[in-house]
Amino acid sequence: MQAEIITIGDEILIGQIVDSNSAYIAKALNKIGISVYQITSVQDDKLHILKSLKEAEDNVDIVILTGGLGPTKDDITKTTIAEYFDDILVQDESVLENIKLLWKKYIKQTLSQVNIDQALVPSKARVIMNNFGSAPGMWLEKNNKVFVVLPGVPFEMEALIDNEVIPKLQQQFELPFILHKTMLIYGIGESKLAERIEDFEDSLPNFIKLAYLPDLGKVRLRLSAKGIDKENIINEMDKQVAKLLPQIRDVFVGFEEDESLEALLGKKLTENGKTLSVAESCTGGKIAESITSISGASSYFKGSVVSYATGAKIDVLHIDSKLIETYSVVSVQVAEAMAQSVQKLFSTDYAIATTGNAGPTKGDSEAEVGTVCIAIATPNGVYAKEFQLGNHRIKVINKATNKAFEMLQKEIFKN
Amino acid sequence: MQAEIITIGDEILIGQIVDSNSAYIAKALNKIGISVYQITSVQDDKLHILKSLKEAEDNVDIVILTGGLGPTKDDITKTTIAEYFDDILVQDESVLENIKLLWKKYIKQTLSQVNIDQALVPSKARVIMNNFGSAPGMWLEKNNKVFVVLPGVPFEMEALIDNEVIPKLQQQFELPFILHKTMLIYGIGESKLAERIEDFEDSLPNFIKLAYLPDLGKVRLRLSAKGIDKENIINEMDKQVAKLLPQIRDVFVGFEEDESLEALLGKKLTENGKTLSVAESCTGGKIAESITSISGASSYFKGSVVSYATGAKIDVLHIDSKLIETYSVVSVQVAEAMAQSVQKLFSTDYAIATTGNAGPTKGDSEAEVGTVCIAIATPNGVYAKEFQLGNHRIKVINKATNKAFEMLQKEIFKN
Repeated sequence: MQAEIITIGDEILIGQIVDSNSAYIAKALNKIGISVYQITSVQDDKLHILKSLKEAEDNVDIVILTGGLGPTKDDITKTTIAEYFDDILVQDESVLENIKLLWKKYIKQTLSQVNIDQALVPSKARVIMNNFGSAPGMWLEKNNKVFVVLPGVPFEMEALIDNEVIPKLQQQFELPFILHKTMLIYGIGESKLAERIEDFEDSLPNFIKLAYLPDLGKVRLRLSAKGIDKENIINEMDKQVAKLLPQIRDVFVGFEEDESLEALLGKKLTENGKTLSVAESCTGGKIAESITSISGASSYFKGSVVSYATGAKIDVLHIDSKLIETYSVVSVQVAEAMAQSVQKLFSTDYAIATTGNAGPTKGDSEAEVGTVCIAIATPNGVYAKEFQLGNHRIKVINKATNKAFEMLQKEIFKN
Repeated sequence: MQAEIITIGDEILIGQIVDSNSAYIAKALNKIGISVYQITSVQDDKLHILKSLKEAEDNVDIVILTGGLGPTKDDITKTTIAEYFDDILVQDESVLENIKLLWKKYIKQTLSQVNIDQALVPSKARVIMNNFGSAPGMWLEKNNKVFVVLPGVPFEMEALIDNEVIPKLQQQFELPFILHKTMLIYGIGESKLAERIEDFEDSLPNFIKLAYLPDLGKVRLRLSAKGIDKENIINEMDKQVAKLLPQIRDVFVGFEEDESLEALLGKKLTENGKTLSVAESCTGGKIAESITSISGASSYFKGSVVSYATGAKIDVLHIDSKLIETYSVVSVQVAEAMAQSVQKLFSTDYAIATTGNAGPTKGDSEAEVGTVCIAIATPNGVYAKEFQLGNHRIKVINKATNKAFEMLQKEIFKN
């Protein structure tokens, strides 16, 4: 069973937005055993959309389209779909009711004609009601192929995928079983890792694939299996993982299970009843933001001080100005003092601190762009390390954030 | 002149990563007048890659491929390219030298055979040297069509696009002129906006297109023009913008120029010599992170306190516990107190504060999930507003962040 995802919108093709919808849909489809054959992004152009629909119909069983369903003139997906299905648009009363309800509850303005026209759908389509917006989802079929048309607004699309499209697909098709197992690896490069586990890779059964996903100081190692015999797949996957783990024990930090390292850390801290605070300079709030993007963070995360200016390190974190003068603001000594200070300020078991220069120009210090000192305070003391993380601002921030979680992980899991 | 971008990798098709490379490449191509006809993502599958190459060759002048150039067994792009060009792989001495250099400088380990094999390239390819990784870029031509093959690691790809591919394309082709003008609109929905400027839209010359890009409480309104007569395009764009602006004056906050609202705010604060601090509860560092992701933030941003736990609001921000008892921790009163406290703590002209419940469960307060109070402190006082921002954690955080910048913007630009 294969699918193609078609995302429609000039904004994607001119690079104004990153198409994150495809990844969301691809993940949801894969989970229920539907492979994604291709993702195609095209402009709001009728002929091109029609051509893509035809090609997708030839290649796959399920076509998911998003985008171009808005109320404005540049949105042409709905009329194009009607043309592809040799159909006309008709007003759907339930959709119109839903739009009236949304307008009454949230918009509190009178409906205009463009809003009312959102209730027009191809007569052959089954409507998939959108509770978060005026553009309905649509389900069409042709020669045993399924076409699902969804709005491009991410949270509207996501709700429709999760609550409507996935259950309907599961109902309609007998699907194979797909299993992914992703291991988070820190502290070894992709090629060294590949060399180390070459024999393991060569001996994998042919229904299990191995992939390397390197990203700023970490590698995600993914095993993917697919087949009809669910039990056999689970057993074989367990066997392969058990075979692999002893070979990567020193660099393996955990299974991803759709989770990041910060989520794994959060779980461990919650289990142990321990707390965490952060003092950030060059990472500018990125560490706190990564921690709090995970629900449940409030059970272990107390807070953070972003002491961006040197003065703030002195006034808010009470770092001794002499320490800064002696060692400079970007130094392992200042990082350690920041970690201990914020640990005390928020009364937490653990603390992370960063101080560095993310660039592009030198800031309050003479440190080279890319120099970052990271400290971890634990109940037993504090230690810091200096890193050189390149000269790309956003990358320096993200690499420093990854490094900080890696250092904290080593402390937390060693106990 | 049209291009197609092909991104290769199973990790994209299973939704494990969001393909941000395409957007980067599309933006760079558009800037020099090359339209992107289609973006196609395919698995690490030889036959499918060959098919996509053929289709792209039929449809466009320039094909840019990324991904699948790593040293591991799942990376098959290079051998597939060689097959497509009826070519063989040969060792490129300059690439091997570059790899040796990188290993000596950064990896400090001996080269393994998989690393050495990275220097194999199709004999017909012109090498584009990659200074950040072992996989070189490659430039091939066939029937007057250009094929550029790049590594999928984002910062390696980005450097090659900016420094090598774009200049080479500009040299080789006579390109049309493309101009985009994007206006940031806050406080009006997409359909109301469309209705309001319908006459304007209908009267646009046919070489200028209008698009609406709605996103969590804001709409980006984009005018795009394309043609050979650069001067005429610039003049006509100016004319149209001058015609449009009076119609959206009350909701227009600035031109995007590849910039976000936080970047515009940063510019204005720097111009005025004013400073900013932030006290964040439910936004958890997102506001500080958004501010500091922009280079130059240190000239106006002093720092932030993420007082995630209620105790931290009392201990670190010195909020009166009686105020919290009386009004609850999620209240406009507490938001105002937080803003004034952090303004004082960091000695800044402006301060933002957020307190709320991003969900999914109720935290330290009885406030409904999605309730967020945002306060802005200025040199002249403080005010706060309460919002109901839905029940999706990440969306609540992002909407609250957008709202905070919108409120600050109104204060800063009114003076």
